[in-house]
Amino acid sequence: MSRYWSDVVQQLVPYVPGEQPALAHPVKLNTNENPYPPSPCVVAAIARELGATGEALRRYPDPLARRLRETVAAHHGLTPAQVFAGNGSDEVLAHAFHALLKHDRPLRFPDITYSFYPTYARLYGVQYEAVPLADDFSIRVDDYLGDAGGVLFPNPNAPTGRALPLADVERIVAANPSSAVVIDEAYVDFGAESAIALIDRYPNLLVVHTTSKARALAGMRVGFAFGHPDLIEALDRVKDSFNSYPLDRLAQAAAQAAYEDDAYFDGMRRKVIASRERLTGALQALGFDVVPSAANFVFARHPAHDAAAIAARLKEKEIFVRHFKLPRIDQHLRITVGTDAECDTFVAALRDLLG
Amino acid sequence: MSRYWSDVVQQLVPYVPGEQPALAHPVKLNTNENPYPPSPCVVAAIARELGATGEALRRYPDPLARRLRETVAAHHGLTPAQVFAGNGSDEVLAHAFHALLKHDRPLRFPDITYSFYPTYARLYGVQYEAVPLADDFSIRVDDYLGDAGGVLFPNPNAPTGRALPLADVERIVAANPSSAVVIDEAYVDFGAESAIALIDRYPNLLVVHTTSKARALAGMRVGFAFGHPDLIEALDRVKDSFNSYPLDRLAQAAAQAAYEDDAYFDGMRRKVIASRERLTGALQALGFDVVPSAANFVFARHPAHDAAAIAARLKEKEIFVRHFKLPRIDQHLRITVGTDAECDTFVAALRDLLG
Repeated sequence: MSRYWSDVVQQLVPYVPGEQPALAHPVKLNTNENPYPPSPCVVAAIARELGATGEALRRYPDPLARRLRETVAAHHGLTPAQVFAGNGSDEVLAHAFHALLKHDRPLRFPDITYSFYPTYARLYGVQYEAVPLADDFSIRVDDYLGDAGGVLFPNPNAPTGRALPLADVERIVAANPSSAVVIDEAYVDFGAESAIALIDRYPNLLVVHTTSKARALAGMRVGFAFGHPDLIEALDRVKDSFNSYPLDRLAQAAAQAAYEDDAYFDGMRRKVIASRERLTGALQALGFDVVPSAANFVFARHPAHDAAAIAARLKEKEIFVRHFKLPRIDQHLRITVGTDAECDTFVAALRDLLG
Repeated sequence: MSRYWSDVVQQLVPYVPGEQPALAHPVKLNTNENPYPPSPCVVAAIARELGATGEALRRYPDPLARRLRETVAAHHGLTPAQVFAGNGSDEVLAHAFHALLKHDRPLRFPDITYSFYPTYARLYGVQYEAVPLADDFSIRVDDYLGDAGGVLFPNPNAPTGRALPLADVERIVAANPSSAVVIDEAYVDFGAESAIALIDRYPNLLVVHTTSKARALAGMRVGFAFGHPDLIEALDRVKDSFNSYPLDRLAQAAAQAAYEDDAYFDGMRRKVIASRERLTGALQALGFDVVPSAANFVFARHPAHDAAAIAARLKEKEIFVRHFKLPRIDQHLRITVGTDAECDTFVAALRDLLG
């Protein structure tokens, strides 16, 4: 601690992202990255923007990312005024906390969820209630009906992978007409129903997306929020009071190209979904309980083996999965769906060490 | 306004960046970009990171930007623990407001300065005093000696271009041992003395740099802060509570390469400095008063012609300069130093319209 720090810095408990090992060939199933490279259109678009001399890089990017917003809006049947673009969905969520979720009444989100949410709340001084999930890790809709300062949850939820049906999402949105309801759909393309379909009917609904998962662009940091233009304006005001140009030229070009190649995108997510079902079967055959997943990861526990010990022994073999030392889930592992070959390596190692 | 907005959103007055015209060949002297492309090493480094398939882009970048921080630290004779990296120096400054400049006593910065500073202050609820510059736009050192909640100014100052000698910077840093003193050196490489030389002696000194100006990477959004590890830790805590991965893979690669080609960097800034002196002479020949500049822009007024009118008429000819409708400087124009050819086009147009 230092006397130069502001009060808030002293209270922060920063989010800790999954490890990025510096190994040449790790089996990396710990940060929910896509096992496939992005669309060839992405590579071509970056090369085009870069040019032979990099001439474009000396110029500021479009601060409004207009072409990108137009492309993504058209993709989802929205107008550009219903789209916000940011430096990864983490930045988009941070701005949502600052702009839309800070009120006198507390924000509600699940007790088991993306562990960045309590961190954002501390950064911006947002009061919150962590609402317990049911024992099977499902969201109990009745716990979110009305009278909150805001509601936030991922769908499918992370790290559980469980999806909430769209009708249940709508019940929550409809029951909170005075509060912003933010649905974090980072993993939606792997099997859940998007709430984007509800945007034109609910002015309090904000849906957050990322290019880091189903679009295979974790390395480029582009995320979005979709909602009523009034909600988007709140995010734009905060963004324009923070950093005019959060998306560099190559990130804008890359994300736009990713939304222009639907065939590649569909192929990737179908392969991941098929591998997830295969991985789930293999884990069940080894005696694991696996939470039904609509994401690109599975959340699993073994009734007879300690989760932290399994993760540590896998790491010795350069296989990385995610373990959270948190209440209610410290006996679970979150395993990213890799290629079938990566999943096979992981399952074989697991079979060895469980004996 | 919307009932979903947090209180802070309603009070924000977002910063307005200089126009990015969508024209094919504007003479763009309004946002202080470098007239030359970045080093060829930058283009090569981006192409290398991208690879043939973009495989690397599916993976998250290094959240700590370790290699980049090491390279930049070595360049400045610092340790990596004395270096913070962010999504442009605008993001770095925003985090500095949140982490280091928010205290009970007000922050001090000049009345004529980077117009983003009051915007940051409103975003984070930081009290501030705008301290008047002298009539010749110089910073009066005596106004910054002690008892502030923090001190912040650019050196050279923007939009004036005036530099403060390092001995004067040191007087201010030394006189504020209880407060963070942030020197925003976005333009330092064009002719001012960097305060990085003072870092090992003053634990309250933070120096902010950008790759957008002298490194010709405005399009890639990479900035830095340099200071005592305690100050850097405060910035890292805020960053890790906001967005784990603010710098994408290509931005990290680009910025690192820019710091590995000193010869190119020196050539670029020498050319810009020579063009600035040539432009200054041409403006003086047309009757302009030009503030002595240590930056890649000049700040000038004509005793007989209205600045806003000049800017508007130049814009009709697709020549863009920056005019600020602000007290004390609404008769000045800020003109970025372009290539000699761009400056000639600008001066010829000016000569025409002044008659």
